[in-house]
Amino acid sequence: MSVRGELLQRFLDAASGGDHETLSLMLSQSRELLDERGEQGWTALMLTARNGHYEAARVLLTSGCDTRVTNRSGQTARDVAVFWGHTHIARLLTGTDTQEPDIHFNREILDRMSDRRSDGEWLASRRASPETVFLLFHALSPLVRSGAEREEQIELCKLRSTAVQELLTGSRTLEVFLGVEKQDDGQPAWFALSTEDDPSQLLQDKDPGSFFLQEAMPGLLRLSDDDAGVVAQARSVLAWHSRYRFCPTCGSDTKVEEAGYKRTCLRAGCRSLQGVHNTCYPRVDPVVIMLVLHPDGKQCMLGRKKIFPPGMFSCLAGFVEPGETLEAAVRREVQEESGVQVGSVQYLSSQAWPMPSCLMIGCHCVAVTTDIKVDQNEIEEARWFTRQQVMDALVKDKQAVFIMPPRQAIAHYLLKHWIGCNANL
Amino acid sequence: MSVRGELLQRFLDAASGGDHETLSLMLSQSRELLDERGEQGWTALMLTARNGHYEAARVLLTSGCDTRVTNRSGQTARDVAVFWGHTHIARLLTGTDTQEPDIHFNREILDRMSDRRSDGEWLASRRASPETVFLLFHALSPLVRSGAEREEQIELCKLRSTAVQELLTGSRTLEVFLGVEKQDDGQPAWFALSTEDDPSQLLQDKDPGSFFLQEAMPGLLRLSDDDAGVVAQARSVLAWHSRYRFCPTCGSDTKVEEAGYKRTCLRAGCRSLQGVHNTCYPRVDPVVIMLVLHPDGKQCMLGRKKIFPPGMFSCLAGFVEPGETLEAAVRREVQEESGVQVGSVQYLSSQAWPMPSCLMIGCHCVAVTTDIKVDQNEIEEARWFTRQQVMDALVKDKQAVFIMPPRQAIAHYLLKHWIGCNANL
Ligand SMILES: [Zn+2]
Ligand SMILES: [Zn+2]
Repeated sequence: MSVRGELLQRFLDAASGGDHETLSLMLSQSRELLDERGEQGWTALMLTARNGHYEAARVLLTSGCDTRVTNRSGQTARDVAVFWGHTHIARLLTGTDTQEPDIHFNREILDRMSDRRSDGEWLASRRASPETVFLLFHALSPLVRSGAEREEQIELCKLRSTAVQELLTGSRTLEVFLGVEKQDDGQPAWFALSTEDDPSQLLQDKDPGSFFLQEAMPGLLRLSDDDAGVVAQARSVLAWHSRYRFCPTCGSDTKVEEAGYKRTCLRAGCRSLQGVHNTCYPRVDPVVIMLVLHPDGKQCMLGRKKIFPPGMFSCLAGFVEPGETLEAAVRREVQEESGVQVGSVQYLSSQAWPMPSCLMIGCHCVAVTTDIKVDQNEIEEARWFTRQQVMDALVKDKQAVFIMPPRQAIAHYLLKHWIGCNANL
Repeated sequence: MSVRGELLQRFLDAASGGDHETLSLMLSQSRELLDERGEQGWTALMLTARNGHYEAARVLLTSGCDTRVTNRSGQTARDVAVFWGHTHIARLLTGTDTQEPDIHFNREILDRMSDRRSDGEWLASRRASPETVFLLFHALSPLVRSGAEREEQIELCKLRSTAVQELLTGSRTLEVFLGVEKQDDGQPAWFALSTEDDPSQLLQDKDPGSFFLQEAMPGLLRLSDDDAGVVAQARSVLAWHSRYRFCPTCGSDTKVEEAGYKRTCLRAGCRSLQGVHNTCYPRVDPVVIMLVLHPDGKQCMLGRKKIFPPGMFSCLAGFVEPGETLEAAVRREVQEESGVQVGSVQYLSSQAWPMPSCLMIGCHCVAVTTDIKVDQNEIEEARWFTRQQVMDALVKDKQAVFIMPPRQAIAHYLLKHWIGCNANL
């Protein structure tokens, strides 16, 4: 047996025996062992699944092994775990199968640490730390500069405390604590600062290459995934402050508390001061967005609003109303906008959408009627498209009969997911 | 062959041949044919699935046939449809398989007809119609009376226009159009009226046996499913009016528009009058509620708040924050409240929860760590419970170590669904 063959056998034996320490050690030296196959095409992961070794399976998973590989009997590691009754491993493997997609605005590089929001002392120490990152906003637009990597990309200007000293002490600045970095040991804290001051003066001082985005859309789509996730949080909270300065219950002015996550009425005796009221907390607006599938499974319905760029079609969407379930909202919106009746609804994924503070809830749903009659107030056209037409649009083929929504939108993901679906369900 | 056998053969032949008119006709005369089995245990539905007759399958489904029956080979109609490649029928059958559960507050007996909200003439005609139903609210509580069927049940007082004439013209009444009945051909409209007037006087006039609920919780749980769904809508909208009378952007007074679904600032020049602003529309607060499953698949975590009745444990829950996905909110809340890390998250079902206007988003999620360390500000205790312990609590066994959340809460459903889960996933 070759040295390499011997190494692989030791690795697979460690997996069979549940020896997770040996697995870790060997992987740190030869990572290529991870997805290697032994007899009958069995991988180390399949062997841990066969024998019910949970910790060993976790070591392999966290090392990034491929869960989709099959052995010569066509079984994945999860199939093996289910067959042998190791439900905890099957669950672990299901967990990695169903990791949500990394859609724009969704990545979270910060731990929000909400328990620190009322800890004034800790916040003051973070504010003063030279490691702390400050993001600047004016009229809900972040201070950015051109990206280093690609021309169309922009990046957030990450300022240090020395650069924002005047702003921090100014009364025209609103501060929101965003969290601390998850990955780093030093855990720098991040704050968003919203300033009412004239940006032209500010820009010259802070960073000559920087500018405030003119239009949130499509500007914010040019951020990296890391930056977009931070902006989703910061912009949603700042938009709430900008619109909800006064107490909606009595009309009085309010003060900001809890590091930017609460506004409290200044009028003693206001009803909003007794008990907990949503008037004091940021608003999040749930929106359903759905790809409507034809009963034949071979077509989907897309619509276009007048404000869309020419040729673009996208998924239907609408706000969830008070007292409604997600599924009821999907059926009502599709019926209102297109006249089509919907049966089953399947939730797929969600997305933060800071325009100003939406929670997009993405679904596939199956139509039970097919005649389209659009409500012209909502959309100007809706049509059934075939899989081939969606694929053409996805690869921007010359033959494409429509233009896809941008890849940063959850509508794009809902379409791509449908195309990727097995045609036999 | 017996007459009965002959009849069944004709019915099954109609299914095989896709003759949906004959199916309808025969069912209208002998409904018991619906789930009868012929050769090899095949039902009419299976035959339509075998031969790809979509309309015929729909006729059987809308007649309420049982989709879970299997033939002698152990196949359901859906299995047959998948096997023979009739994906549209498989989808249709999946649709009926995945109908969401009928949880309290979720049933919708009204079509909201949102396009009528700005149709003053139509609304006036509905208001005057003797068929129209009016529900009365005071301080967000509906006017009810003791239920006819069971002692603990209460029912909404459904008043007619003659009974509410003074209220309709009074300036101290707020009106919300709820929709029209879905089932009835006459389609009576429903309105909610909120009055600031002293209820004692009102009650004597309207209905001697009626009363305003003292406590929304648990009072509203005593409503029938039909009534609860209507109250979920009405109470959420009325709670918004009660808390959001003033424009949060400038503090001015507002006026009610669109039949109770919009409030518009009365100050000319207010920023909220340019473009579309969420300040003008009812608020819906998304909340994640999740059953945390142990990595071994055999236990689940439940917690208790100090305000719970003694012995009750329930699912963890919390508000979705700005800029967060559902899955991120689930992981953050579980981590904050219990110290446990969560991997995969699976959405199961949602529920309207009008206290005052929440959208409960129910999930199962799988823990990747198991040590519990509760945040005493949020919950007083959290524990892992076995399937057996949950089953004991569900059937209220004497041995039960905890008390379930009420059956009207989505937490109850999440637990019941887990117990019903196949133990092999
Ligand atoms: Zn107030
Ligand atoms: Zn205003």
